[in-house]
Amino acid sequence: MNLHEQSILAKKAAPQLRSLTYAQRRSILHDFADLLLRNTEAILKANETDIETGEKSGIRPSMIDRLRLNEARIEAAAEGIRQLASLPDPLGIVLDERTLTSGVHLKKITVPIGVIGIIYESRPNVTADCAALCIMSGNACVLKGGREAWHSSSAIAACMKQALQKNGISPDAVMLADPVSHEETAAFMNDRENIDLLIPRGSSRLIQAVVQHARVPVIETGAGICHTYVEASADPDMAERILINAKCSRPSVCNAMETMLLEEACAESFLPRIVRTMKENGVTMYGDEHTCRICSDVLPAQEDSFDTEYNDLILNIAVVKDVHEAIAHIEKHGTHHSDAILTEDAEHALLFLNSVDSACVYHNASTRFTDGFEFGLGAEIGISTQKLHARGPMGLQALTTYTYHLEGKGEIR
Amino acid sequence: MNLHEQSILAKKAAPQLRSLTYAQRRSILHDFADLLLRNTEAILKANETDIETGEKSGIRPSMIDRLRLNEARIEAAAEGIRQLASLPDPLGIVLDERTLTSGVHLKKITVPIGVIGIIYESRPNVTADCAALCIMSGNACVLKGGREAWHSSSAIAACMKQALQKNGISPDAVMLADPVSHEETAAFMNDRENIDLLIPRGSSRLIQAVVQHARVPVIETGAGICHTYVEASADPDMAERILINAKCSRPSVCNAMETMLLEEACAESFLPRIVRTMKENGVTMYGDEHTCRICSDVLPAQEDSFDTEYNDLILNIAVVKDVHEAIAHIEKHGTHHSDAILTEDAEHALLFLNSVDSACVYHNASTRFTDGFEFGLGAEIGISTQKLHARGPMGLQALTTYTYHLEGKGEIR
Repeated sequence: MNLHEQSILAKKAAPQLRSLTYAQRRSILHDFADLLLRNTEAILKANETDIETGEKSGIRPSMIDRLRLNEARIEAAAEGIRQLASLPDPLGIVLDERTLTSGVHLKKITVPIGVIGIIYESRPNVTADCAALCIMSGNACVLKGGREAWHSSSAIAACMKQALQKNGISPDAVMLADPVSHEETAAFMNDRENIDLLIPRGSSRLIQAVVQHARVPVIETGAGICHTYVEASADPDMAERILINAKCSRPSVCNAMETMLLEEACAESFLPRIVRTMKENGVTMYGDEHTCRICSDVLPAQEDSFDTEYNDLILNIAVVKDVHEAIAHIEKHGTHHSDAILTEDAEHALLFLNSVDSACVYHNASTRFTDGFEFGLGAEIGISTQKLHARGPMGLQALTTYTYHLEGKGEIR
Repeated sequence: MNLHEQSILAKKAAPQLRSLTYAQRRSILHDFADLLLRNTEAILKANETDIETGEKSGIRPSMIDRLRLNEARIEAAAEGIRQLASLPDPLGIVLDERTLTSGVHLKKITVPIGVIGIIYESRPNVTADCAALCIMSGNACVLKGGREAWHSSSAIAACMKQALQKNGISPDAVMLADPVSHEETAAFMNDRENIDLLIPRGSSRLIQAVVQHARVPVIETGAGICHTYVEASADPDMAERILINAKCSRPSVCNAMETMLLEEACAESFLPRIVRTMKENGVTMYGDEHTCRICSDVLPAQEDSFDTEYNDLILNIAVVKDVHEAIAHIEKHGTHHSDAILTEDAEHALLFLNSVDSACVYHNASTRFTDGFEFGLGAEIGISTQKLHARGPMGLQALTTYTYHLEGKGEIR
């Protein structure tokens, strides 16, 4: 079956999902978790096939690592699915309710979006994760993962299909695409007839490709060039603690700091201290002229340094005149993800919070908190860096839309 | 200045708008309304130029009518702007607020989107309307209207720019595009760097062209093929009242009924009555075979009848077996806009409300209520038939996004 035919079947299965109760959706997820555990052997065998094929074709070891499943990873996936099933129902939430002047009674309530297309790379656990998120929010889905992980994903999707059938639901509600050509993928991204929303998950290259080529609406989970701006009034111990946490606690993730901005007034005093600590933590630093003048062991920034998401133990440093220059720097180089100000000046903090146009803006805290679980959403589909529909960490409700139910007694306009 | 340069300037002006208070935004709108009235003569003169040019180039009389301004229309525009200024502030609304387990205090609040691009046709009042909506919601805008209305729109935009300047705001916050080439328009629709959101306003051809070609996120304000399904249990007097209202009160608008579905059980009894009344109201009817067998003065439906938005005194009629067949018909032919069931059967009503995947689903009321003012939004940017970001009638809040403000005391993760 080709991808277009799969999308048509998913679309046909969507209305059935829409009418499922909360209990039914939870039951499917618990069955899915059970089946993953029960089929661990088969999944690991399929995974072995993917890894052997990958090694033969010479893909990078880091990619092999992303591809690899083991018992612990499958158990973790099952546990994550059970946690998802314990979250409050994202559907049927009454967002607004009132009687209009006409007498018609209006209720605005959350409903599923319909069919969600997920485009991702070679992590097979994304298959389990996305299938569960979609079913919990009442959506059908078409999963288009990397061909390197196809056997693993296929074994995982088979468990979900079995769970759906066990609960009387068409297995077409979760479709896993066979490895397809670029032309078929392009057609999939333009299939507004059958796909309501596309979510790309993976590298920024993948995400940009989807954003550039899709006619189906996309939620962009983008790059994070996160800034922390330190003022002279900030407590230096607190500043050091936050900066080290923002850069070093998990440098590979999108909410890690890439650039530190320092108020000129504290550059001479604070810069040598923080550079030393960063160095002790294994961080390579690139600085602007001012920074390099003060600290000779900071490398001169390259032309694109301040526009680079390193996802690594690398940090840019720039000295700015004041909060206004900091805001302007972030406006120029930021990606509207997460940015922080460290200061004791309440007025500057407020100005920064109101002026920086990012999903999450922090005062005296680490940007590392930008996360669906930290924000209490209980799940995370991704972190949106776009402004429409969902912004910042996205929980289950990001996979819903709303509808107006209007009850009348014969009213006309 | 070309359109790309104008977009860059609008983008530069956006941060200033973002920081305006509610009082400042209201003041700009009141000044704008004053200036429209004070410059009525100049606007009408510009409008005369457009009309003369249009007549010379032989555009249709209906288009000339849409183009034409007069004192009353300008007064109505000014009054609409004052009403907009009296609405509650759509910005700074706290959507969520709580202290996370980390101790960081989270506030989720509404903020402007940034720069909104509006693509529209030859109604110059859309220029006034959209400029006011964008400023009231703190957004900069680039207005790309039809070249036929350029002189009129230009005179109106000049008033807005003057109002901005009077309030100390850069006039670049509202940009009116000069008539441009198709290439420039295409580049504009792909300018993700400077334009955050595109809203097409006008014919479904225009909207589809934007949806097909834009890389900038679009809010689709789409076609309305609205259905009303009548069951045998419905009170026939109520049904007749609602059906006539839905079809005849304003057939040119998107919330008017295009198709009536009748439950088989009441076809023999109700069809002759409603067909007679529709005929008295000047409605031309196309029916399926069953309908035509019962009422010989209903024309046989064409192949595409049930997929056509007439926006006219024309109605499709089909007889369906039951509520399930009605839901399936709407799923196949509807546009996810507004659909209604008329019935006294509460179970069927609930099934219909929960199954029909439209922005607005009615029970015993006319689909004509789908409207921003009727819904109490106080304004209407359009009626969205897409599922992301905004669905159904869009008020000022559809022109906002949200941001998370996070206040800490040195928290790290």
